Amino acid sequence: MQSYQQMSKEELCKIKEGLEKEYAKFQGMGLSLNMARGKPSAEQLDLTMPMLDTINSSSELVAEDGTDCRNYGGVDGLPEAKKLIADMVGSTPEHVIVYGNSSLNIMYDTVSRSFTHGVMGNTPWCKLDKVKFLCPVPGYDRHFGVTEYFGVEMVNVPMTAEGPDMDLVEKLVSEDESIKGIWCVPKYSNPQGVVYSDETVRRFAALKPAAKDFRIYWDNAYAVHHLFEDDQAEILDIITECEKAGNPDMVYEFCSTSKISFPGSGVAAVVTSEANVADIKKQMTNQTIGHDKINQLRHVRYFKNKDGIMQQMMKQAAIIRPKFELMLKKFDEELKGLEIGTWIEPKGGYFIGFDALEGCAKAIVAKCGEAGVAMTPAGAPFPYHNDPKDSVIRIAPTFPTLDELETATEIFILCVKLVSIDKILENK
Amino acid sequence: MQSYQQMSKEELCKIKEGLEKEYAKFQGMGLSLNMARGKPSAEQLDLTMPMLDTINSSSELVAEDGTDCRNYGGVDGLPEAKKLIADMVGSTPEHVIVYGNSSLNIMYDTVSRSFTHGVMGNTPWCKLDKVKFLCPVPGYDRHFGVTEYFGVEMVNVPMTAEGPDMDLVEKLVSEDESIKGIWCVPKYSNPQGVVYSDETVRRFAALKPAAKDFRIYWDNAYAVHHLFEDDQAEILDIITECEKAGNPDMVYEFCSTSKISFPGSGVAAVVTSEANVADIKKQMTNQTIGHDKINQLRHVRYFKNKDGIMQQMMKQAAIIRPKFELMLKKFDEELKGLEIGTWIEPKGGYFIGFDALEGCAKAIVAKCGEAGVAMTPAGAPFPYHNDPKDSVIRIAPTFPTLDELETATEIFILCVKLVSIDKILENK
Repeated sequence: MQSYQQMSKEELCKIKEGLEKEYAKFQGMGLSLNMARGKPSAEQLDLTMPMLDTINSSSELVAEDGTDCRNYGGVDGLPEAKKLIADMVGSTPEHVIVYGNSSLNIMYDTVSRSFTHGVMGNTPWCKLDKVKFLCPVPGYDRHFGVTEYFGVEMVNVPMTAEGPDMDLVEKLVSEDESIKGIWCVPKYSNPQGVVYSDETVRRFAALKPAAKDFRIYWDNAYAVHHLFEDDQAEILDIITECEKAGNPDMVYEFCSTSKISFPGSGVAAVVTSEANVADIKKQMTNQTIGHDKINQLRHVRYFKNKDGIMQQMMKQAAIIRPKFELMLKKFDEELKGLEIGTWIEPKGGYFIGFDALEGCAKAIVAKCGEAGVAMTPAGAPFPYHNDPKDSVIRIAPTFPTLDELETATEIFILCVKLVSIDKILENK
Repeated sequence: MQSYQQMSKEELCKIKEGLEKEYAKFQGMGLSLNMARGKPSAEQLDLTMPMLDTINSSSELVAEDGTDCRNYGGVDGLPEAKKLIADMVGSTPEHVIVYGNSSLNIMYDTVSRSFTHGVMGNTPWCKLDKVKFLCPVPGYDRHFGVTEYFGVEMVNVPMTAEGPDMDLVEKLVSEDESIKGIWCVPKYSNPQGVVYSDETVRRFAALKPAAKDFRIYWDNAYAVHHLFEDDQAEILDIITECEKAGNPDMVYEFCSTSKISFPGSGVAAVVTSEANVADIKKQMTNQTIGHDKINQLRHVRYFKNKDGIMQQMMKQAAIIRPKFELMLKKFDEELKGLEIGTWIEPKGGYFIGFDALEGCAKAIVAKCGEAGVAMTPAGAPFPYHNDPKDSVIRIAPTFPTLDELETATEIFILCVKLVSIDKILENK
C-alpha cells in the first residue's frame, strides 16, 4: 500500500471521504464494544468451571502439613500452594508467600509498607522528602496508579524491543538515592508484549543502586500466558540472577492465577528472597490471620502441578489466539505501508500496543468511542496519564467475541486512518 | 466455700499439698490441650460444609446486577453481599463495602491508610509527631497489635459491665487532639463478653473529639454470636446513633463471617457513612480490582438472608454452649466463694475473661502450660502485652472437644488455686 505520508492533499481528501462514509455507517449501528481492559472472555472463564467441583461438602480440607484449611492460620500460604506458584514462575517454595486473590493488592501493600515501615530496617519512605520510581513506558496503568496514589515521583524510561532502556536504568538507579523502585512486566509486557532478553534480566540483577532499599517490582503477570504452543518465550529467573549477582534481596516478583483460573477468585503471591520473606511476614502477622486456604487448596487440587497449569493455558490460548490473529491480520492488510502506525506482534499476554502518529492517540480513542468502541483511555499506559507524544494506544482484544472483535477492529482501523489523515493534512 | 483469703497459713498449706498431688497427676499425663485462641472447633466447621455445594461447575455465577462474578471488577462487593452484611449488623447496604476474608485486614488497611493518606482530607498520621488510640482493657490482642505495629501510643481505658469507662473516654477524646481512635468490641467483648449498654453506645455517638479525624473502630465481631436462643443481646446501631448525634462519619464498623462460615474463607466488611465509603473507595480503586466475588456469592446463596445466618448461629451455639456451661459450672463449683478470681458469665462471643488475684495471671498461665494446657499469654489482652495488675486471663473454650475442655478446665482451676495460695501466703 502506498504511504499516506507520500500522498497529495487531494488524494488524502478523497480517501477520507470514503472512510467517513464507512465510519458513519458504523456510527449508525449503535454498537457497544469493549477493548478497554485485559479481561478474559466468558468463554475463557468457562474453562475453569470444573475447578469449582474439586472441592465440595465431602472433601477433606486438610493440607499436606495437617492444617485444617477451613480454620484460621497459615499466614504465608499452604505448602502445596507455595510449590505450585514456585513451579509456575520457575522458583522454589521458600521464596513464596501466597496471598489472597489480587497481586495488585500485594504490590499496593508492598509500597504501603515501605512508606509506613521502610524496607528491611531502612527509613520509612513517608519520612523522606522525595521518593521516585522508574516507570518503563508504555506500561501498566494500575502500577502507575499505586505509586501516584502514594505521591511517588514517576520517571519515564523508554521501552525497547528487549525491555527497558537499561543504559538509562543503570545510570539513574546508580546516581539517585531517591529512586526506590522500578515497575517491570518482564514477559509479554503490558501493553506491548515485549519479552525481556536474558541480557536485560542480567543487567537488572546486576544493578548497583544508590539506595539500599531499592527494589525491582517484577510483575510476572503473564508468566505462562503464551499464545502459541510451539513458540513460548522464557525469561531468566530474576531471583536466581539476583542471587548470582550478589543482590539477593533486590527484587519482589509478583504473580497470580487471575488470568489462569478466575480473575476475581484466583490466588496471588509474592516471590522473593528469604530475607525479604521474613521482612514481609513481620507486617503480615499484624495484618491478617491468613488468606483463603480453601481457595488455595481448590487451585492445587484442580491444577495439580505446572503441567496442569500449562494445559489450561493452552486451552486459554486456543480461545485468545484467533482474536490476536484476526486483529493482527487486519492491521497487516489495512495499515501496513501506510506509515500511520506501528505495533509489535505479541507471542503472549493480553495486549497489543499500537503506536500511532504523534498527537493522534487521544483523537483515535475518542473517535472509536463515538462509534461505540471503548478503548483504554489514551495516556493510560503512562505515569500521570500523560503520553508525551500522545501516540500510544493499548488494545485489549480478549474480552469481545470474535465477531465483535472483527467489527471493533474495523472501526479502530477506520479511526486510525481518519485521524492520521487529518494530522497529515495539518502539515501539508 | 470458705474464702482462701480468710484461711490460716496452716489451712492453706494443707490444701496446697492436696492440690499439688492432683497437679502432678495431670503433669504426668503428657497432655496437649489448647484454650489459647478463639478458634471454632472442627465440629463447628463441619456445619458449613454444605456451603461448598452451593456453587459448582453448573452454577450460574451472575450477580443481581448482572456482574459475572468470575471476572474482574466489583471493588466494593456484590449488591446482594452488601445486603446480607447490612442485615446481619442492622444497617443498610449503602453503608457497606465488602472485602476479602479478613476483617483484621480491613482494620489494618484503615489504620495504614490513615497513616499514609489521612482521614477524609486531614493530615496523614505519618506527618504527625504523636498518634494515640484509646484501648478499652482487657481487649483484643490483635487490635493492639495493629496499632503497636504503627507506633501508635495506646492509652488504657478500663472496661465496666456496660462497656468502656465513658467518663474517661469523653474526657480524653475531647481534650487530646492526638487521640485518633478507639478500639471497641461492642457486643460480647473479647475477652469478657461485655455488651455495651444503650447509654454507652449513645455516649459514643455523641463524643465531641478534639481531633476532626477521630474515628471509633467498632469491631462488631460477634454481632450474631449468641450462646442462647432466648437470651440474645442487642446493641443499638452505632451508624444510626452517630447520624442522630450529628457525627455521621465518626465510626468505622467492622464485621465478618469468619466465625459464622469458615474462619479462613469467610467474607469481611466495613460498615460506615457514605462519605467514609467514598473516602475508602479512593484507596481501594488503587489497591485492588476487586475481592473474591464467587465467595461472596457462595455466602449469599448458602445463607440467603439474616434468618439463614441466625439458624446457622443457633447450630453453632448448640456446639459451643455446652463448653461454656461446663466451664462456668466448674468455676461456680470450684472457685465461687474462694475470693481468688472473678468472671462474667458471657451470653455470647468466644471467650471468658478471668480476673485472677493481682500478680497471678502470668504464673497461672505458666503453670497451665507446664501441665500441657496452652492459654493465651497473660498480658495479651492489654496494649504492649502489659497487664498492669497481672490479673487478666483470656480463656477460649471453643476449640477443644468437650472432653478435652473438661480436663483443661480442671487443670486451669487447679493452677488458679495453687498460684493464688502462694500469693496469699506471701502476704500472711
